[in-house]
Amino acid sequence: MSPSRFSPDSSIPLYQQVADRITALIEKGTLSSGERLPSVRKLSRDWTVSITTVLEAYRLLENRGMIEVRPQSGHYVRPRIRTSPPEPNFNRSRIQPTAVSLGELSVMTLHDAQDAELLHFGAAVPHPNMLPSERLNRTLSAVARRSASRATSYEFPPGAKTYRVEVARRAVTAGCALTPDEIIATNGCTGSIWLSLYLLCKPGDAVAVETPTYYGLLRALEGLNLQAIEIPAHHRDGMSLDALEYALQEHRIKAVLVTTNFHNPTGSCMPEKNKERLVEMLADRDIPLIEDDVYGDITFEDERPKVCKAYDKKGMVILCSSFSKTLAPGYRVGYLAGGKYHHELVKLQITANLASPTLPQLAIAEFLANGGYEHHLRRIRRMMINQMAWLRQAVTRYFPEGTRMTNPQGGFALWVIMPEHVDCLQLYDRAIQHKISISPGFMFSPKRQYRNCIRLNAAFATEDTEDQVALLGSLAAQLAQREKTSV
Amino acid sequence: MSPSRFSPDSSIPLYQQVADRITALIEKGTLSSGERLPSVRKLSRDWTVSITTVLEAYRLLENRGMIEVRPQSGHYVRPRIRTSPPEPNFNRSRIQPTAVSLGELSVMTLHDAQDAELLHFGAAVPHPNMLPSERLNRTLSAVARRSASRATSYEFPPGAKTYRVEVARRAVTAGCALTPDEIIATNGCTGSIWLSLYLLCKPGDAVAVETPTYYGLLRALEGLNLQAIEIPAHHRDGMSLDALEYALQEHRIKAVLVTTNFHNPTGSCMPEKNKERLVEMLADRDIPLIEDDVYGDITFEDERPKVCKAYDKKGMVILCSSFSKTLAPGYRVGYLAGGKYHHELVKLQITANLASPTLPQLAIAEFLANGGYEHHLRRIRRMMINQMAWLRQAVTRYFPEGTRMTNPQGGFALWVIMPEHVDCLQLYDRAIQHKISISPGFMFSPKRQYRNCIRLNAAFATEDTEDQVALLGSLAAQLAQREKTSV
Repeated sequence: MSPSRFSPDSSIPLYQQVADRITALIEKGTLSSGERLPSVRKLSRDWTVSITTVLEAYRLLENRGMIEVRPQSGHYVRPRIRTSPPEPNFNRSRIQPTAVSLGELSVMTLHDAQDAELLHFGAAVPHPNMLPSERLNRTLSAVARRSASRATSYEFPPGAKTYRVEVARRAVTAGCALTPDEIIATNGCTGSIWLSLYLLCKPGDAVAVETPTYYGLLRALEGLNLQAIEIPAHHRDGMSLDALEYALQEHRIKAVLVTTNFHNPTGSCMPEKNKERLVEMLADRDIPLIEDDVYGDITFEDERPKVCKAYDKKGMVILCSSFSKTLAPGYRVGYLAGGKYHHELVKLQITANLASPTLPQLAIAEFLANGGYEHHLRRIRRMMINQMAWLRQAVTRYFPEGTRMTNPQGGFALWVIMPEHVDCLQLYDRAIQHKISISPGFMFSPKRQYRNCIRLNAAFATEDTEDQVALLGSLAAQLAQREKTSV
Repeated sequence: MSPSRFSPDSSIPLYQQVADRITALIEKGTLSSGERLPSVRKLSRDWTVSITTVLEAYRLLENRGMIEVRPQSGHYVRPRIRTSPPEPNFNRSRIQPTAVSLGELSVMTLHDAQDAELLHFGAAVPHPNMLPSERLNRTLSAVARRSASRATSYEFPPGAKTYRVEVARRAVTAGCALTPDEIIATNGCTGSIWLSLYLLCKPGDAVAVETPTYYGLLRALEGLNLQAIEIPAHHRDGMSLDALEYALQEHRIKAVLVTTNFHNPTGSCMPEKNKERLVEMLADRDIPLIEDDVYGDITFEDERPKVCKAYDKKGMVILCSSFSKTLAPGYRVGYLAGGKYHHELVKLQITANLASPTLPQLAIAEFLANGGYEHHLRRIRRMMINQMAWLRQAVTRYFPEGTRMTNPQGGFALWVIMPEHVDCLQLYDRAIQHKISISPGFMFSPKRQYRNCIRLNAAFATEDTEDQVALLGSLAAQLAQREKTSV
């Protein structure tokens, strides 16, 4: 390995930086499964770090499940996931409007998420350790003390100016030049998307979504009586634009709803050129794009990716997001940048909610301005890089043969594709008995595809959950085995 | 006047209790306009209070505009409003479904309410002095300190248990026996009503409402593409049930939406027997009732009135309310009791908002449990009794002849009916130039009736706004005069 310098960021111990770099080399395939790592002495020389640092880095990588020691021989990259997920299915006959009816399924994992006794591999909620709750609450208390009356008064839409200023400032990191007057404070990203869909569509209209896609989006389509057109998506690049192009020719599509960055459940991130093409494709046809960027800040790279909104010239992209994944789900503070629909969306937010809560907006604004949000983001990105790597290794180790999984580039979600006969709902039922919650795969498709898939929340996948991942794997193996013998 | 004892509630000065009792006697007509009050000496003897107390009470009543001193003669009840509002119009041909399109009008007064330079006679927002903001914010900060992680975590619908327990407890004062499991935390009363209408109606459906009615309710109907059937309402007793009965026979009505207690804008309160009849009438026809009780706690009597929900046997009443009028509009914490629609409403709240903010729910729960909410209510009720009495007298004094107004029994709203030719929008425009915001009457009807009416927010009508009421009156007089001369 070639020499290379480490950033002088003093908040990350050097051995961790070394381990992160090796993790990246493994993730990118530079170091492949089974390959021998450089000796401790060699790496210490090549990277000009101390022997102790390399030893600690290797120990950390062992704990992460990335490498293993073979006695008398050295350190080796652990066997990787046997196969990647399949390429998307371009079967044209399947690209059809479908009524959405998830029914009770779509609220099931929410109830699990409230249950303190469960391990939360189900709902994609951040782990409490990832959130700066005490600091954020202190900020909120300080704001309340400073402006008691304002804290209890309405902040009518578009919402608190200070909050919108900070959101506009941060949008620069996603490639957007937005003014605070283009931003609306909402009740979380769910609120943003609901308002957008409600404004743009009438009951019966068809909306194009990725498949698989987050059941919360499907729940919104169901609640609004909209049809879903499932567009095949790649586990790395997201929605297939060729498939979308076909769907646009064949069907009347009222809006397109895409999670461009760190898709839930696949973790895909749409490449920049695809984003640009998607925006142009839709602008040509005067079809609005609703962009869900709620995971955009949780990148596994150094910088967060751009959003489609960055390429929006006609004001037809509605960017939806929130701080629920990075700061405080319970504050219910989201936002949208509505482009040419801004004014109508302001009115709709007034009509449906009158206003969003004042204090959470002011507190998050202050935290974004002075609280070290970027520093905080670096911390949770590091946590998620490690936890995702660990979880992927653990699934590799414990799940039955034939299991495949995605290789997320950000976010919380790991999408696990089990052998064909394993039923995700049976696995769910058995796992719950062992106090483990998971998200069954068929909630991610209105056609109830993905029966052999589950989504795991890597935000809760720390090393001390190894027993539970092992248990999940053995339950899956039992189900796989049973099917085999019964066939 | 007969002898009578005063409550030993030490937080209300005795002279104020005496003044309140006299105010009540005037309001109820026991003491009529122009009548001479007992001499100071006589009242002191009759009510066994000191001379000083009576003098202070009379001075307070003078300040309130209730009584006046005639030199060498004594204290007299001031001339009252010349006429009451007209009886409701039972013209059957007018009871027809109407598409609602208030357009920009309905958000106009909200923007005014955010403008710190205006006097807020427009939006029906509480005055900051009425709210226990500091105490409430302290409670919220304490909760956040105590349970930092919980404060930033989701509280999925139906919402925080402690909050629902307190809401259920308070519902007893409104005649309801509800369990916490029948309550859903929402984003304010607006959120409750929006969810209810969205669940019950499809675009094009007709909903019966009172006329005039709060434009926020009409805004919801417009946003949901629903038709309004305006049912005549009495300024004291609320919706005419005979007129509703007629409408139910003639039209297909999907739901009835009524502000039963201290109606906005008329301040009417539906008598108990009417409430019972309304619930039975609708239950017989399987038509749900959406009940808006947001002002219910701000009674001018000793006890708050019951709600229709108290008479609900079939689970067809959805009770909607919030703490926005009594505690903290900016917290955005409301609730609903959805009867047989409970489960569907929980799901809809998840779909549209995922959850309501956690901290505000927990803080309000704690305040309701330990913060002296009843004591606080007594305080704002007294404030509103005084301010409403003062405002009514001020309007009597300063508005042009022929002006009539309601006699609210609770709430914030005073509905002023000016001479026929006075245009509320012209008055609005002129008043805004003088930094006074009002609510133009025709926002309160989809048929744009009530062009000569305005709603004034008595929550901001303290004695030091006399100049502004006088100015409003003279602007109205100018408009009345101009019309007369041009005719």
